[in-house]
Amino acid sequence: MVESDYRFIKACYGEEVDATPIWIMRQAGRYLKEYRAIRKKVDFLTLCKTPELAAEVTIQPIDILGVDAAILFSDILPIVEAMGLPVQFNPGPVLEETITDIASVDRLGLPDPEATLPFVMETIRILRHELEGRVPLIGFSGAPFTLASYMIEGGTSKNFLKVKTMIFQHPDVWHRLMKKVTAAVIEYMKAQVAAGAQALQLFDSWGGSLSPKDYREAALPYSKEIFSALSGTGVPTIHFVQGNPAILPLVASAGSDVVGVDWRIEIGAARDNIGRDIPVQGNLDPCALFLPPEKIEERAAEIIKQAGPRGHIFNLGHGILPPTPVENAKALVAAVHKLSSK
Amino acid sequence: MVESDYRFIKACYGEEVDATPIWIMRQAGRYLKEYRAIRKKVDFLTLCKTPELAAEVTIQPIDILGVDAAILFSDILPIVEAMGLPVQFNPGPVLEETITDIASVDRLGLPDPEATLPFVMETIRILRHELEGRVPLIGFSGAPFTLASYMIEGGTSKNFLKVKTMIFQHPDVWHRLMKKVTAAVIEYMKAQVAAGAQALQLFDSWGGSLSPKDYREAALPYSKEIFSALSGTGVPTIHFVQGNPAILPLVASAGSDVVGVDWRIEIGAARDNIGRDIPVQGNLDPCALFLPPEKIEERAAEIIKQAGPRGHIFNLGHGILPPTPVENAKALVAAVHKLSSK
Repeated sequence: MVESDYRFIKACYGEEVDATPIWIMRQAGRYLKEYRAIRKKVDFLTLCKTPELAAEVTIQPIDILGVDAAILFSDILPIVEAMGLPVQFNPGPVLEETITDIASVDRLGLPDPEATLPFVMETIRILRHELEGRVPLIGFSGAPFTLASYMIEGGTSKNFLKVKTMIFQHPDVWHRLMKKVTAAVIEYMKAQVAAGAQALQLFDSWGGSLSPKDYREAALPYSKEIFSALSGTGVPTIHFVQGNPAILPLVASAGSDVVGVDWRIEIGAARDNIGRDIPVQGNLDPCALFLPPEKIEERAAEIIKQAGPRGHIFNLGHGILPPTPVENAKALVAAVHKLSSK
Repeated sequence: MVESDYRFIKACYGEEVDATPIWIMRQAGRYLKEYRAIRKKVDFLTLCKTPELAAEVTIQPIDILGVDAAILFSDILPIVEAMGLPVQFNPGPVLEETITDIASVDRLGLPDPEATLPFVMETIRILRHELEGRVPLIGFSGAPFTLASYMIEGGTSKNFLKVKTMIFQHPDVWHRLMKKVTAAVIEYMKAQVAAGAQALQLFDSWGGSLSPKDYREAALPYSKEIFSALSGTGVPTIHFVQGNPAILPLVASAGSDVVGVDWRIEIGAARDNIGRDIPVQGNLDPCALFLPPEKIEERAAEIIKQAGPRGHIFNLGHGILPPTPVENAKALVAAVHKLSSK
């Protein structure tokens, strides 16, 4: 199969497709009993760092749900560790050492992905081989703002006060950190493509906590730099910033091929806001998978209608939740394909 | 002083003002050493339930910051307790008993505010007397969606999965609960006006977690009912839904006099989206109070410029954070008055 024949790849470029492609954020996850069976044997970090197992759980939802793309099973934080800040899961991520000043930024390394994250590259190579002719493989990285947030907050945060205080009171430290993280993310994502990734998603889990002004000044230039650097790789890129529909036009301006949309806005309005020619990905509320299957189909139909037949990759508006009934996820995938078939 | 002479009241109705009024959400709070001194002596619940002390902390920011309105010091959960579900603070709110089915909804009472929340009414009466001729007093309640969320989740929530599961799988229970909560909120807010409140704010802390479709169907009709019921009270109303700029036009359609805007959207864009004739309240990021004072003034100037001279009440986009330097809060109030003076 020629790569450009995958309906997921075509949709990333706004080309005509036989049906709307769908994949699901966190589709390799705890809602699958097959995933839980593996997690009984190894902890989360071991799973991320064992290529055979990471590849196995990546493939599970392709077999079980019939989604149109695989996404590398990994976490966004290994790159942070590779830069020099150890991460524990407990169960949420905890960094013992954080970024507080110029000196702590200067201690961070610019890692060679093949040398420091070999398990990621090996997982991609296994997957590319196993998935050939079935579905394309999406690689990913956390966006600089989200990675830098973890580095400063030392974990998840409610208000992002430490990060914002850094941006507001020590912009020199902030921009020096963002430059370094951006350079590391570019190398990491390029290495993923070299290893076999056929598309790339940049996840900005926390970018939506910023006002438009702060997003524009503190985060956007770095995401823009990433998409500019990746434009020569020949694979389509997706930019997903969670949590604030008002910044979607700024998110789109970063220059990815596809813009991810969370569930807080109607996808038709999102397309109107960013321009109908830019492909979008989304945007069913993950909680809607707790509706009865016929209602899930109704919601899928509404999203497909609003998004239109071209330039739409169906997805949830955020990661699938662990208690989701797998039958409902299957019903969603089947409904999207049925409703959008030409 | 005639009530309608207060610049806060004038701004609520879009009338000409001598300067843009400002108050700050959670202005009676831990960032003030005077507040911390009282909290050393009594816990949070005792403070809420002791009218003399609640009135004292309500007045503190009027004296210290020079804001243009006082807001009743209380919590949104006493009404939940009055309806029959005990609430502990530990430190976040925890409900031992939650709403799970029709029977649990039917066990809830429709409380008489004077009988079940006498400490709130007494606080208002004290404040109205003490503040006469200085600033108007804002009363408030949690919105039905937020109160029902606490009743179902039993506390705060990350995904609101229990609430959404209730809405999706048991809409009969959901709507029966919302009808009852709405009736209780209406009685509660009317009683606040009878006791002396001169404006009312409906806080929907969690409404932004809903998609536009779900907000429209599961939350909006009840907020609309509240503003319709309050329209005869003769005091202006403010509707603040946090967390999702995409639903602002729906929020405005509920019919309050003023629409609260969080920091996720530029206030000029918010006014354009809901219609320039509807007064707005907001919207500085609470974290921006950690900027140096001259930068705080720049941000205030931009918000004042975008919002325009009429129909704007300056506020933060969410509650002031406990570590905020009080000097910076003072600088904000002074800057808003200086920049907007006619």
